[in-house]
Order: sequence, then C-alpha cells, then structure tokens
Amino acid sequence: MSDLDVVQLAPTPEQLRYTFGAAEPLITVRPGTVVELATEDCFGGRVRSAEDLPSQVCEFPYLNPVTGPIAVEGAEPGDTLAVHLVDIAPARDWAVSATFPHFGALTATHSTAMLHEPLEEVVWVYEVDRDRGTCLFRPRRGGPEIELPLDPMHGTIGVAPAGGEVFASITPGAHGGNMDTPEMRAGTTAYFGVNVPGGLLSLGDGHCRQGEGEVCGTAVEAAMRTVVVVDLIKGGGPAATQPWPRIESDEFLMSTGSTRPLEDAYRVSQHDLVTWAAELTGWDSLDAYQLVSQAGLAPAGNVVDTNYTMVAKLAKRFLGRDAVVADGTHDRLRSTASAYLSQR
Amino acid sequence: MSDLDVVQLAPTPEQLRYTFGAAEPLITVRPGTVVELATEDCFGGRVRSAEDLPSQVCEFPYLNPVTGPIAVEGAEPGDTLAVHLVDIAPARDWAVSATFPHFGALTATHSTAMLHEPLEEVVWVYEVDRDRGTCLFRPRRGGPEIELPLDPMHGTIGVAPAGGEVFASITPGAHGGNMDTPEMRAGTTAYFGVNVPGGLLSLGDGHCRQGEGEVCGTAVEAAMRTVVVVDLIKGGGPAATQPWPRIESDEFLMSTGSTRPLEDAYRVSQHDLVTWAAELTGWDSLDAYQLVSQAGLAPAGNVVDTNYTMVAKLAKRFLGRDAVVADGTHDRLRSTASAYLSQR
Amino acid sequence: MSDLDVVQLAPTPEQLRYTFGAAEPLITVRPGTVVELATEDCFGGRVRSAEDLPSQVCEFPYLNPVTGPIAVEGAEPGDTLAVHLVDIAPARDWAVSATFPHFGALTATHSTAMLHEPLEEVVWVYEVDRDRGTCLFRPRRGGPEIELPLDPMHGTIGVAPAGGEVFASITPGAHGGNMDTPEMRAGTTAYFGVNVPGGLLSLGDGHCRQGEGEVCGTAVEAAMRTVVVVDLIKGGGPAATQPWPRIESDEFLMSTGSTRPLEDAYRVSQHDLVTWAAELTGWDSLDAYQLVSQAGLAPAGNVVDTNYTMVAKLAKRFLGRDAVVADGTHDRLRSTASAYLSQR
Amino acid sequence: MSDLDVVQLAPTPEQLRYTFGAAEPLITVRPGTVVELATEDCFGGRVRSAEDLPSQVCEFPYLNPVTGPIAVEGAEPGDTLAVHLVDIAPARDWAVSATFPHFGALTATHSTAMLHEPLEEVVWVYEVDRDRGTCLFRPRRGGPEIELPLDPMHGTIGVAPAGGEVFASITPGAHGGNMDTPEMRAGTTAYFGVNVPGGLLSLGDGHCRQGEGEVCGTAVEAAMRTVVVVDLIKGGGPAATQPWPRIESDEFLMSTGSTRPLEDAYRVSQHDLVTWAAELTGWDSLDAYQLVSQAGLAPAGNVVDTNYTMVAKLAKRFLGRDAVVADGTHDRLRSTASAYLSQR
Repeated sequence: MSDLDVVQLAPTPEQLRYTFGAAEPLITVRPGTVVELATEDCFGGRVRSAEDLPSQVCEFPYLNPVTGPIAVEGAEPGDTLAVHLVDIAPARDWAVSATFPHFGALTATHSTAMLHEPLEEVVWVYEVDRDRGTCLFRPRRGGPEIELPLDPMHGTIGVAPAGGEVFASITPGAHGGNMDTPEMRAGTTAYFGVNVPGGLLSLGDGHCRQGEGEVCGTAVEAAMRTVVVVDLIKGGGPAATQPWPRIESDEFLMSTGSTRPLEDAYRVSQHDLVTWAAELTGWDSLDAYQLVSQAGLAPAGNVVDTNYTMVAKLAKRFLGRDAVVADGTHDRLRSTASAYLSQR
Repeated sequence: MSDLDVVQLAPTPEQLRYTFGAAEPLITVRPGTVVELATEDCFGGRVRSAEDLPSQVCEFPYLNPVTGPIAVEGAEPGDTLAVHLVDIAPARDWAVSATFPHFGALTATHSTAMLHEPLEEVVWVYEVDRDRGTCLFRPRRGGPEIELPLDPMHGTIGVAPAGGEVFASITPGAHGGNMDTPEMRAGTTAYFGVNVPGGLLSLGDGHCRQGEGEVCGTAVEAAMRTVVVVDLIKGGGPAATQPWPRIESDEFLMSTGSTRPLEDAYRVSQHDLVTWAAELTGWDSLDAYQLVSQAGLAPAGNVVDTNYTMVAKLAKRFLGRDAVVADGTHDRLRSTASAYLSQR
Repeated sequence: MSDLDVVQLAPTPEQLRYTFGAAEPLITVRPGTVVELATEDCFGGRVRSAEDLPSQVCEFPYLNPVTGPIAVEGAEPGDTLAVHLVDIAPARDWAVSATFPHFGALTATHSTAMLHEPLEEVVWVYEVDRDRGTCLFRPRRGGPEIELPLDPMHGTIGVAPAGGEVFASITPGAHGGNMDTPEMRAGTTAYFGVNVPGGLLSLGDGHCRQGEGEVCGTAVEAAMRTVVVVDLIKGGGPAATQPWPRIESDEFLMSTGSTRPLEDAYRVSQHDLVTWAAELTGWDSLDAYQLVSQAGLAPAGNVVDTNYTMVAKLAKRFLGRDAVVADGTHDRLRSTASAYLSQR
Repeated sequence: MSDLDVVQLAPTPEQLRYTFGAAEPLITVRPGTVVELATEDCFGGRVRSAEDLPSQVCEFPYLNPVTGPIAVEGAEPGDTLAVHLVDIAPARDWAVSATFPHFGALTATHSTAMLHEPLEEVVWVYEVDRDRGTCLFRPRRGGPEIELPLDPMHGTIGVAPAGGEVFASITPGAHGGNMDTPEMRAGTTAYFGVNVPGGLLSLGDGHCRQGEGEVCGTAVEAAMRTVVVVDLIKGGGPAATQPWPRIESDEFLMSTGSTRPLEDAYRVSQHDLVTWAAELTGWDSLDAYQLVSQAGLAPAGNVVDTNYTMVAKLAKRFLGRDAVVADGTHDRLRSTASAYLSQR
C-alpha cells in the first residue's frame, strides 16, 4: 500500500464553511487520494444538553458547517468527481437532535408560512455506544426508551455549484449539498458533476442515523471522523448527460433529485435513473422507463430543507450482466478502501 | 378448521365496479370470514398483446375494475375494517404493462397540463412463471431481457367514502382506493375506517410486482386469485383518531397519505404514523415525532394517480415491547390465515 | 317578454344538497329558461352571531348546501351548459365569516397535516347595506372598522361529474363546484361540459364579496336571491375539446383549473385558455401561448378547498374582431337578462 | 431641484452581472439619489430576429444580465432599501419574446423533468411604438395581429442575499430577483430588506409588458432606459419583521412570495400582507387575516422561474385613514420623482 496517498483534513473552527461555492480550497489532492477528515455536527457542536436550545446557542448563518473545499487536481467542468465513503465514525459518545422553530415537515416554516406559533423547541441527547453500534433514544416525557442501531452517514456532501452561484450548506440541489439521504453511508460511491476547476468537494452534517424524510428536521446529529477516497472521471461521466448527484453501492444504483414540490424531486430522480439505465443497457428510453416502473425504489431523502430530496434506486442485477458504471470506478474504489482499511 | 367461514366471490363482467361508494354489496359476510375472490386486471383483461393499445381497447370510465363491495355484518361508522391479505396469486401465465397517453409521472397529464404531444403508447407483455416465481421483462427495442421476482399485491383496495362521495376506483384517498403501494402484499393486514354501514370493501388492480411510485403509470398488471380474511374492530380503532388507511405486517407499522402535492401526502402519512406511535407507546407527540424522524421509512406509493400516495413505515421493534395494535388483530388474523392455508 | 320562461326554485331545508352528482333533479327546465332561485349560506344559516362557532353549530357533511340540481331538457354528454348570472342579491341584512379549525391557507389542514393546534375559531358578523352596496367589517379586537363594497358572487356552481363520481359540494374540479372565484359574479356566463343527461346544475355558497384565494377559508357568506338564465349549446362547445369550466364576461374570457398543487391549477387554466384562444382566432397553439403570455391575467380563485383554483383571464379585445364564442351565446343571454330585468 | 442628486449608470457589456450577491458595487450613492440607468434585455441583446434562437445565440450562465450593484451609503443589515421606479422606457423600437427549450409553465423543464422532447423554439419580434404606447404581436403562423398597450416594468430587481449566498439573476427569493411581476412598473416603490452593507441593488430584465405568470417563460423583452430614486429606511422597516420584497403604489400595498410549490409562494405573500396590515392598523393578526380574506387580490407573478412568485395585494383604502407605510416614504419619493420629471 505504499502507493496510497493519504492526507488528513481537520479544519479549525475558523476554517469551517457554511456554503457551497465561493470558498478557497483548504487542500488540493491528486485523484485517488484517501482523505481522513473531521466534520462538526450541524449545530457546530454547540448543542450539548437538553438546555442548549439551538435557536439560542446557534446563530444564523453559522449552521450546518462543512469541511472543505477539497480541490481535486485536474478536475474541469464536464468531469465527474467520484467520492467513495470508506468509513464514517461518530467522534463522541453522544449525539443530539432537536426541533427548531419553523423547521421540519409537520410544522409551519418560512416557506410554508402560517399563522401558527412555532412548535415547542426540544432537544434530545442520544448516548452513542460505538462498540455495540447503537444510539439510545430517551423520550423527554415518559414512555419506553429505544435502542437504535447506528447507521452513520453524511447529510451534506457536494461540490461548488455552476454559474457562480453560492448556496447555503443547508440547501440541496444539482451540486449535491444537504440531501439528507440515509443512502449516503460508508461503502457507497457518490458522483458529482464538476462545475468549476478543482470541483471543490465539501462534506459535513454527519448523522448517527436518520429516518427517510428526516421529518422533524434534524437527525441524530454528530461530529464524525470520516475517510473518503476522492477520484476523478475525466469527461463523459454522469455529468455529461445529467448533472444530478448519483450514488452507487455494491447492489444499487441511485439517482437524486432535490427541488420542490416533492413530486418534482421525484420526477428529477426518476428521469435521471431512467436515462442512466438506458445508457448502461442500450434500452430505448421507454423500455428503461418500463423497467424502472416495475423494479425501482423511491425513498424520500429529506422533506424539510430548502429543497426536498427524493432518491430513485435500482438493483444493479436488474440491468443485466453487461451494465458497468464508469468503467468500474466503484469496484476500483472499493479495492482502494479495502487496502486502506486493511493497513490502518 | 370447521369454524372457518369461507366464501367465494367471482364477479361476472357485469358485476365489476369502477367506483368506491354508490354500489350495492355483492355479498355480506360475518367478521372473520375468509373470502376467496377473483379480480380482473386494470385494463379489464382487454390488453392481451402488444397490439392492444389501452386507449383503443379500453373505454373511459370502464378502467380499473374492482371486485366488491363486500359488506361486513355489524360494521358501523366509527368502526374499523381489518383486511388480512392471505394470498395473492396471478390468474394467468401472462401480465401486461403500458404507457397510456397523458398518464404517468414523466409525462404531461390532465392535471400537469402542457402543450406536449403524448409520449408514445407502448404495451409490454410479461411472461409469468408462477412456479419459479418470476415475470419476464422483454424490452420492445433491444437490450437485455430481465427476469424479475414476483411480488404480488393489490394496487386498489378500500371502502365506501364518507359524506356520500363516490370516487373513481383510480383515485386514492382517506377511504383507501388506488394507493398503488407495493406494501399491500400477502401477509399484511390493512385497516380502513368505516364510513357507511357494512363498510363496503372492494379490491382489484392486482400487480405481479410494482416499483415504488409506479412511474410510468402502470405496473405488471394481472388478474388475481386472492384470499382475504375480513374482520371488524368495533369503535376505538384507527378510525377513531385518524381516518387514513393503515397497514401492519409482521415487522412494520405503515400509515398512508394520498393527496397532492407529494409533500402533503408525506405529511399526512408521517402525521398519522407519529400519532399512532404516540398512542401505542404513551410517548408525547413530540417524542414520537423525534423517534419517527430517526427510525421511520418513507417510500413512495404512487406518483401518477389522481392523488399521490406516500407510505410512512416504522419497525415495530422500535416501539418497545408493550406496543400492541388493535388488541393483536394482526396476529389473530395471521393465525386464521395459517389455519386456512394448512387446510386448503 | 311573453316569450320568457321564468321559474322559481326555493328548496326546503330537506331539499338542500351537499354533493355534485347522485341527486335527482328538483326541477327540469327548457333551454333559455330564467330561474329565480334561493340559496342558503355555506353554514346552512346556522352561524348567526359571534357565539355560533361553525365547528359547534354545523355538522359534517352538512356543509356548503347547494340549490339544485336543475335538469336541462335535451342536455346530453358532449353538450355544454351555458349559465348566465343575471342577478345575485344578499337575502339578509347580515352575513358572516369565520376561521374554522384546520381550514384555510395559513393554517395546518387535513391535507397539509402538522402537529400544530388549530388557530382560534373566530366569527365575524358583517352588516350588509344593500341600498348603499356595502358590507361592514368589524374587527373583533380593536382597530379600524372598514366598509367594503358589495361584489356578490357564487362560490359554488357546477354540474354532475363524469364517470359516476359524486363529489362533496366543497370540492372544485372539472365539473365546476366550489371554485370560489370572485369572477363568478352577475353579468357573466359560465360554461360547463355536460357529463350526464340533463347536465344537473346546482349552485350555492353566495358571497357578498371575496378576496382572491379566500385565504382564511371563508368569504362574507350570505344566503342569496339569485336569477340565472340556463341555456344549452348542443355539441361542439367547450366540452368538446376541454372539459374545464369557462367564464365569459363582456370584456374577458376566463378558463379555470382546480387541482393541486397550485401550479397545476395554473397549468390547467392556462392550457385551456391557450387552446381556447387558438380555436377562436386560428392561431397556432404556440402563437396563442405567446399572446396569452403577454396579455393574460392569472388571479387565484381559492387556495383553501380540497382542490385549489386558478383563473386564466384574457381581454376579448386581444383576440381580434372575428373571435366569437359559441355563436354569441353570451350576448344573447345578456339580452335575455336585460329583457327580464326591464320587466321585473 | 438644485437639491436633487442625479447620477447615471450605463454599464459596459463587461460590467453586466448575472447574479445577486458576490459582485462589487459599480457605484455608491447617497440615500435619495436619482439614478438614470440603462439595462440590457434578458437575452443580452443577442436575439434580434426570428432566426436568432436563444439556445444558439445565448450561452449559459450569461443570461438575464442586471445593471448594478448600486451601493447605498449607510445601508446596514436590518435597514430597508426603498426604490421608487420613476420611469421605464424601452430603449429600442423592437422587442422580442421566445419559447426556450425546457423553460416555461406548459412544458417539461429541468425541475418538472419528463421524457418529452422540448417544445419548438420560436422567436417573436415585436414592433414597439413608443409614441402610441403600443407593441405589435405578429403570430408566426397566421391569424390576427394584435396591438398591445405598453406597460413597461422590470422582471428582475433586488439586493444581495443574506448569509453569503449568491443566486443567479434568474432566481427570485427573499432578496427580490427575478420575480417577474407586472406590478413592478413606474410609479411604484419597492422595498427590500438589506442583508449586506450597502444593500447592493441591481435590476434588469425589462419587459414592454407581461402577462401574469409569464406562462411561456419570456415576456416582451426589451432593453430599458430607467430612472429610479434610491432611498434608505434605517431600521424598523419591513425587513425588521418580514424580509420579503414589498411594493407600494398610490392605491395598493403588495407583498411578494417566491418559492415552490405555488401555494407556498401564495402563503408567503399572504402571510406577509396579513402581518403588514396588522402592523399598520393595530388589528389583531386574525382580524387582519379576515380583512385580507375579503379584500385582497392574489395575482400570479411568474410560474416559470427557478422559484414561482405570487403577489398579495390590498387597496390602501381598506386599511382606514391612519395607516401610513414607513412614514410616508412612497409619497415623499413620488414628490422627488415629480420634481425630477418636471425638470428633465
């Protein structure tokens, strides 16, 4: 494994970023580099007990910090960044969740504006047991405590947007961002179309686990120690035909769509998956539409952020034997990850 | 099994119904009765080859026929019908799917009105191999053929609506109807609030399998031979607090919401699941909101019908040991089903 | 005026209906008949003071009563009913409005389900001065009183739906129903596609006036004494190409769309107006799309009912001199109305 | 008028900007300054004949250029910019409109993704007669030509967003931007909450006129010679309670909401208008909700951009005699405009 480039990235508080776009890269890496990085939780680590109400201890716009940007040598618009998530480990033995005034799916918000007073702001502190792989839900007002399995993931991951736009890290879109899908777990490879030289990858908002839709607006929020392999696909990758983020696991292909209303997020994700399936198999687009209609999955990502996210998901085995994504990038990065892990 | 009431219901073509509400019951059964019934496919069996274009061989409003209504003795508004799906078996060795002009999620429709010409109308005929448990996708214009596992379910199941309304069988809502969720498979128990005396259960629209969202508008459509146990929960059931259809499997509780836009279907389903979880555990509603946020699933049902359907899904094990739904109705009906199947 | 057929229709409380579809006609009239009719307010006249909270004095589904159905001799599916609104006069010297739990645009509702408690239920009683043509807004908790001009209209007007469906009178759709647009005032002609023999016109839900969108959920609700001319256009009318309700005034053509989300209601209404403009002028559909883009208006009807309503509106003068709707039906009915009014 | 500050701003092509946020101010003015400025059309002036298809002659992201930013001395976050539109005059004797692939309300778009081919791309060139105050619609494929009255306005006007975000000029939001409402005409005062020092006003996208909703995606697009008065309200202005753009004319107060779905844009605009009306009159928020429900107007702004815009509109006379907005800023700027115009 002498040929593995491994770099560390642990930003100081001042180096944390709150947008995609605009920021200068913290580091520049060669394609294929393993990056060991640290991310803060979505509250910047300021919510530590039930008394730390987010609306009091956090200050807009200093929410949802991301680690990065990481520039990739040689990345140009039209290329695709492939980011393999090797490991995502909670950094502390606790994590938090909360309701937040006018944020969430079952409350009036700034966009779904209503005359209601906000729901009560409540914080839940979870005990995280990394050995047993669990986090403990303690209801605030009685009833059973529930041990939930850890399923760590990153809510926020993406690149600099196109057209000189700069988006708050809380906004998901074609550049990635705060998609808040539990599918973004270790073992998957995420693909992002490159919009600016270097691509400028950032990530954060680690979750010990998250329900689909993230209905109350926050997950089991945790600082993370995360390892990724950052790779580059020159030209002709996903971005060439469809600029929405894609995810590949050993078993599934996944397309994302992040917009409003939720049916449009569904349409974007399904359209991309249909297009992708047609490309990989040689099917006509209506044939691919048909196959996805019968074999596709459609879990919600988030229904709470500034844009909503839907995931369109298809088992690779339903594409036949000859379908290969990006010349086997996922398998290759899987191998790199194995090499890294076996040596760590 | 001498104590099992078993009745058959195989409607003639003239007895097929196309609405929920308005129709007189075809049969009346006692609570606990096993009903062996036949359902036609959504095209009324008229689409049998690639040349049978649905828009030519079918006639509005004679689409999506349902079998029923089945009246349940003693059912009154405020009660809940519990319908356990014992078995759903394709009736033929073929099934069909199709695009249909201005129907589907990736096409202009009558509601999402646009100036585009309709997408091409295409029919796919699937070979169904009941022994191997598969159906075969054959692309119309080249590329790999794919064998898909059978996962039979009913797209349409529900009761007479409240308030004297009558809905086309293609419309899902609080009464159930055309929810088109793959979760409506054998082994589950569906709960419907009773709105009129007898409840008036109908079902149809069998699918050999279906992707989440049913993106092209139709599934692998098949006539079915289906067995259900129909039971009655007097008062105080789900309908007492929340009139949306619910589903219970051995592992999961599921709430449905069917409306537009899709985020409102999500909200309805999540709100019901949060309310349900609070009732079963004694949690405060904000505590239930928190638990569902971290442990819930949110797959799309359909994003193509007159209303869209989302499913909110929670593993029962995350509710603690004391949570029991409707005094164990699901387990009891499971036993009835086992008794029936062992004797068949 | 010896040739004017004039009939009266003042239903007893038992004769009031709460749905479109299903009901037998109260009367049958010949095309061209003037009907003098009485309508109750949306609360069935039960809310008469600030103490009469609608949720306490009204009972679901006995809300929003309509007068009718009125069958039209010779009306068959494919024909169009033309309903000219001659006069709409408040029947009493008071009218009411109210917030209603979980109803309105700035509150959680059954569809936009949230965990909020309902907004406070409040009733406003308006003094109606028919001579001065005003109604008086009295704030309940201080601040200026405001005299508003009367602009009487019917929130609910439509025909029996297609396909055997029956909709609550509170639901707007392709059959008309509770569109709640202030454009439905005296002097206009409304067009409805006929779905069943006789057409079966019903109307109610009179408003002394209403803002666009009806944001709190109710208007200045009043029983009305209303006069309409009911006419029939055989074949080839609006219903032949597009079944959504249309409205014609001396100056404007208007198309309606009633569905969710609101952009789909906008799309339906604009699509119909573009199609209609193309038919009347001979423009290509893209040319009509262009003209409507520059000259059309798009006020909200309601954003509170079970479906939302948008109106697409175009001044007739922007269609050129040769554009004539339905062989001049509106002008002809205008003349009938004048003859009736001059003689009353 | 010796006390009138009048400055000119005519950017070179290189000085045109395509975003809100990020750019350095072109000029800095004192509050109360009259600015005579030039804006290019949304195509950057490159579409000049029916043969100049926008998708061929324009290049992403160089669309919808704006003139600015204009910094205002002393403007700080929490303040409000008041921008009075004195005059908006077409700069040329022609203007253009077009369909654009996958853009518009009656076509599949990148957000409302579908499998349709784009609608045909067509350009319409309008003759502009500034003396007669008309622009001439010439259908491309026959049918009547229509002379439309000029009603010049700016589709795009706004300030730098909060939180370091940078939005494409085509995106409307809380910062203003591409709201595309015909209400933004001469004689009105627009209010924007200040998010960054100087406020950083930019405007462009002049329209000779526009229908509500801008259904095909483009208006009668024209370069403009525009005069504005830029003023500053220190603290306690609209931004203090609600950061969405507001508009005041001699007769109306208007609130805007720009988001998706369209009902949320409606909610935002109505919520702001209710809040504003309550502030100006002393009404309780439910009383204001009631008055707006009966007297408010709700025209669509745009239903085609990256966010949709609704306008909530209320005649000032329905607020009583004592309601005064921002200490009479509109009347004061009206006087400044009169002084300027009388001297020009």
